[in-house]
Amino acid sequence: MIYLDHCATTPMSSEAIDAYRKAALSYYGNEQSLHDMGEEANQLLRHCKREIANLIHADPKGIYFTSGGSDSNISTLLSLAYGNQKRGRHIITSPFEHPSVYQAMNKLRQEGFIIEEVRALPNGQVDLTSLQQLLRKDTILVSICHASSETGVIQPLDEIGHLLGAEVVFHSDMVQTFAKLHIDIKQLHVDAASFSSHKVYGPKNTGACYISPKVTWRGIYEGVTHQEGFRPGTVDVPGITAFATAAATLYEELPSLSETWRRMQQWLLDILEPLGFHLFGDRDTRLPHHLALRASGYEGQWMMLEANRNGIAFSSGSACKTSHSAPPKSLLAMGHSPDEAHGLFRISFGTGTTWEEIEETAHVLQKIVHS
Amino acid sequence: MIYLDHCATTPMSSEAIDAYRKAALSYYGNEQSLHDMGEEANQLLRHCKREIANLIHADPKGIYFTSGGSDSNISTLLSLAYGNQKRGRHIITSPFEHPSVYQAMNKLRQEGFIIEEVRALPNGQVDLTSLQQLLRKDTILVSICHASSETGVIQPLDEIGHLLGAEVVFHSDMVQTFAKLHIDIKQLHVDAASFSSHKVYGPKNTGACYISPKVTWRGIYEGVTHQEGFRPGTVDVPGITAFATAAATLYEELPSLSETWRRMQQWLLDILEPLGFHLFGDRDTRLPHHLALRASGYEGQWMMLEANRNGIAFSSGSACKTSHSAPPKSLLAMGHSPDEAHGLFRISFGTGTTWEEIEETAHVLQKIVHS
Repeated sequence: MIYLDHCATTPMSSEAIDAYRKAALSYYGNEQSLHDMGEEANQLLRHCKREIANLIHADPKGIYFTSGGSDSNISTLLSLAYGNQKRGRHIITSPFEHPSVYQAMNKLRQEGFIIEEVRALPNGQVDLTSLQQLLRKDTILVSICHASSETGVIQPLDEIGHLLGAEVVFHSDMVQTFAKLHIDIKQLHVDAASFSSHKVYGPKNTGACYISPKVTWRGIYEGVTHQEGFRPGTVDVPGITAFATAAATLYEELPSLSETWRRMQQWLLDILEPLGFHLFGDRDTRLPHHLALRASGYEGQWMMLEANRNGIAFSSGSACKTSHSAPPKSLLAMGHSPDEAHGLFRISFGTGTTWEEIEETAHVLQKIVHS
Repeated sequence: MIYLDHCATTPMSSEAIDAYRKAALSYYGNEQSLHDMGEEANQLLRHCKREIANLIHADPKGIYFTSGGSDSNISTLLSLAYGNQKRGRHIITSPFEHPSVYQAMNKLRQEGFIIEEVRALPNGQVDLTSLQQLLRKDTILVSICHASSETGVIQPLDEIGHLLGAEVVFHSDMVQTFAKLHIDIKQLHVDAASFSSHKVYGPKNTGACYISPKVTWRGIYEGVTHQEGFRPGTVDVPGITAFATAAATLYEELPSLSETWRRMQQWLLDILEPLGFHLFGDRDTRLPHHLALRASGYEGQWMMLEANRNGIAFSSGSACKTSHSAPPKSLLAMGHSPDEAHGLFRISFGTGTTWEEIEETAHVLQKIVHS
């Protein structure tokens, strides 16, 4: 099977599996325990915090660990909203977010917060004029992803952050970009961010978030002693060690990897566009390992199932099992018709992707639309 | 180091590490993906569900996976409260619960639910007469742990369940008893339960809960597609595989293990009681691998730190790093003075515990109180 669904999930790298095994055998103590077994686990945890922080040029004091990207988004957004609600209850987000961001926003809306969505440009970026218009005196939080998993388009975070200024807390879901793009969190003016381990060749059920130590937050649950009250539950030191190892390993290879990915991406586009395939969103300002495509007249889900029959695994955008799924709202916001949006399928490369696999993929896609 | 803190956390068994590695390499697909990599992960997930369900004689349809014991307690209690609030908003719990149960209860109290606590008997069990008195027409949920991690005393779940009848949903935190006691969830009249992986030699950040398919619940967040809406986030199939393997492996060895643990426990008590050590709670109706002790005139935290200096890791009840910690409320509820309650330290055995370690522990404890 050719696996081209690396934006959905990745296999663990051998370095990560190794690190996991070693930590599970030797650093299994509860990091909150006061005995030596606890203290040793706690030291390793602090080391991992520094390692994750280094990859985004952030203060390690702002790193908290979670059970994955969804948990990072939900826990961070709720904690930021609760911690800043005295200043206002207005929150802005975008139509390009992961379902977990909308789950958090719906919860906040039920609790009396006002949630608004910024308009989108046809190229897949948020409309900065619309953002400026939405900003109010009581806006406390803006959450806009670094790159959408559906479109792969990279958002102009530095411009957004600059526009927001110091008064509004700026959160960005960086699950799709962490350790896959160069990130300097301060340069981007981002105050808080979410990361996932299993998108960067680490274990599932592990993730992290960053909240600038300058920003106020209040945990979802009262009386939590773990992670300064951010999240209840025994901290998974072996999983976190494997996560940090996986991310650091990926980041080291990144310059050459992203160069290869970019060439694979552009090569595929050059082959496919003349055959009636269309790219969603900007051709250049996008993740180098990501293609959001449609073939005229074909549903994305059908393309995905046909490719699967031909030994290639990719995703039909939604990665959702419900058969009556709505078309991706990101594509509707960019001005596409529901029919066009339903055509979405997503190819995403990873560390192990070879040129042979890319050529075979082009061949299979061509075969599907000509059969 | 002699590790006698197995009620706090356990090392992963070699079987679990092996299972984890294999699943991480071969079943890494997102179980919601419709391609073969997703389908294979989904099949393995369903197999694990059956395996976990078998250990408690439950319907696999009622098994959901979480990121650990705390998450199991919080997600289950909130989901049960939200799903049944039309029938009433009165909830009963006990003074023997894990902090995560109180975190969930405090959240519910803030949202307008009425939470009451059952009284305790001096032997560490809940007072059934008090429970009967607390029951109201609008009681929708009772949550009482199977065994307290602080006292180790086993609660009479079958009597409680029988008393509650079919109208009240009965949840039990089984984190300390799962795969360590024989559990038949239907015989105990339990409708919902919480389990943790890292207490049974599986990975951290993994857990499960059971909710009888007959019982109504409503997930905390709207629009969740994973696990029938119970919990957002990519399901950690490798972690769950390791969890199921660890639990099944432990359960197989249980008859001989619990026999050994019971003998170690009683041997230690016979040595320590004449030296001025006191047991908290019932001597017989307790976890075979657990001792809740105090030494007259010594703080539990001091005992723990002295033991640590002598190469033995156990816990001082609270497993909490705050220095100004309150005495365990479970012990106060049993009628102990704050001074007595502050004396608590907890020894808990595991699969690797040897008689030599138990003898050395007796020797060290004796040395500490006589130095």
